[in-house]
Amino acid sequence: MALKMEAAALQAFLARDFGQVAADFLVDHVDDAGLTLRLAVAERHLRPGGTVSGPSLFALADVAMYLAILSRIGPVALAVTTNCSIDFMRKPAAGRDVLAQARVLKLGRSLAVGDVLLFSEGGTEPVARAGLTYSIPPQQG
Amino acid sequence: MALKMEAAALQAFLARDFGQVAADFLVDHVDDAGLTLRLAVAERHLRPGGTVSGPSLFALADVAMYLAILSRIGPVALAVTTNCSIDFMRKPAAGRDVLAQARVLKLGRSLAVGDVLLFSEGGTEPVARAGLTYSIPPQQG
Amino acid sequence: MALKMEAAALQAFLARDFGQVAADFLVDHVDDAGLTLRLAVAERHLRPGGTVSGPSLFALADVAMYLAILSRIGPVALAVTTNCSIDFMRKPAAGRDVLAQARVLKLGRSLAVGDVLLFSEGGTEPVARAGLTYSIPPQQG
Amino acid sequence: MALKMEAAALQAFLARDFGQVAADFLVDHVDDAGLTLRLAVAERHLRPGGTVSGPSLFALADVAMYLAILSRIGPVALAVTTNCSIDFMRKPAAGRDVLAQARVLKLGRSLAVGDVLLFSEGGTEPVARAGLTYSIPPQQG
Repeated sequence: MALKMEAAALQAFLARDFGQVAADFLVDHVDDAGLTLRLAVAERHLRPGGTVSGPSLFALADVAMYLAILSRIGPVALAVTTNCSIDFMRKPAAGRDVLAQARVLKLGRSLAVGDVLLFSEGGTEPVARAGLTYSIPPQQG
Repeated sequence: MALKMEAAALQAFLARDFGQVAADFLVDHVDDAGLTLRLAVAERHLRPGGTVSGPSLFALADVAMYLAILSRIGPVALAVTTNCSIDFMRKPAAGRDVLAQARVLKLGRSLAVGDVLLFSEGGTEPVARAGLTYSIPPQQG
Repeated sequence: MALKMEAAALQAFLARDFGQVAADFLVDHVDDAGLTLRLAVAERHLRPGGTVSGPSLFALADVAMYLAILSRIGPVALAVTTNCSIDFMRKPAAGRDVLAQARVLKLGRSLAVGDVLLFSEGGTEPVARAGLTYSIPPQQG
Repeated sequence: MALKMEAAALQAFLARDFGQVAADFLVDHVDDAGLTLRLAVAERHLRPGGTVSGPSLFALADVAMYLAILSRIGPVALAVTTNCSIDFMRKPAAGRDVLAQARVLKLGRSLAVGDVLLFSEGGTEPVARAGLTYSIPPQQG
């Protein structure tokens, strides 16, 4: 299917509507198969011991799926997460960015469902996985 | 990694230890990347309207992940599911088997985590997805 | 809020629309706070070793939430489960029925969300817990 | 069961080991039935539109369950979240703290499972619910 928003458009959307967190997240790649989002890891994302915190990983998975959906349907600011089930499997490597690979599995009229794998940059084994559901508001006439 | 159980061994394990449901499930394929399990759909798996029931899809995902784990660790009958989060996305096609593609994402000492995509045979869009966690009992001396 | 269906009406609905499984499930109680559903455990619900199988517990949680929603909105046969996250915590006691206590946490126009605790009859510690989301079809004129 | 840590001890633990976020979270109450944790909502927890962000709600649920477990087992810094399934049901009220009510449903040797309801202060309908699993490290000698 044709993408309605490319990486630059998604990044601009994030900067405009989610300015507070936009600096944390960089769209590395988007295509028909899905979207890769980077968490530019900074001090504020860390837990004691230097590992990336659970809420930071959750936020990364959540934003990655959000942008993957927007790449398909265009800039719908009102899509909201209704469910996320996340498994934390390994400690993220210290001092590395985390990359989220999101794919949309269903894009219905009112619900979108997808899943996300999270990797420390350069790693081959996922640090976390998540399944997410978004509610998509009815289109305005 | 080397597989500890191939398709025939998994099928024999199922027949011996889970005789009640073994006829429902056929191991179509197993390799390093994961395992494909077939639900041979019969009357008893259907809901009103002829669609495959949620519990039948849940059982398929659960058994697929179980066998995918056993293919890696060998015949450990005591592994138990501790969590499953499943998203039902589309109605399964009537009159078709359902195929589950399971992959193991983490195989730790005490926990194994993986995910599963379910498809009606011949279909390209998943009818369901699930993430599962299994608890693996400590190895006996 | 006023209930739209009492226990007898729910049981009749189950018998009519889900005849295949209706004998498994008995509505023990329903009120404003939620619904208690009993799985009348029989041979077909058991795993090797005599414990109630995961798919049987899943089905119990799923039907309990479905009926809890119907008790609020009336007989809407087309509500469908979109997500279930279930934690299996303890082995059900052998030879006992399992009771599910379901409560509806949100009843929106298009989505209903709730959770369920499952107990072996007479037990005080839950054998499983689940959170479920149902999609409710738009009301016909 | 006897609590191993009361509210003041839990708060001190948080301040010492999780200094970065300790100011966000206040233990309102803890007893045998569970723990209530308050998110002292500040600008940094908000999404555009003034509502509390999903990652902030996730963090609240996660910390609430963590502290509920510690209240039972004592100060085990190494317990880690392995799974969280969270349903976002309603927008939190603007300008109000969010309260998390956590209860421990299973406290095993290696896994602890519980659930959490989140409310805007003064509200009676939950804004979110979550089920969480923690892995508890083996006890040293």
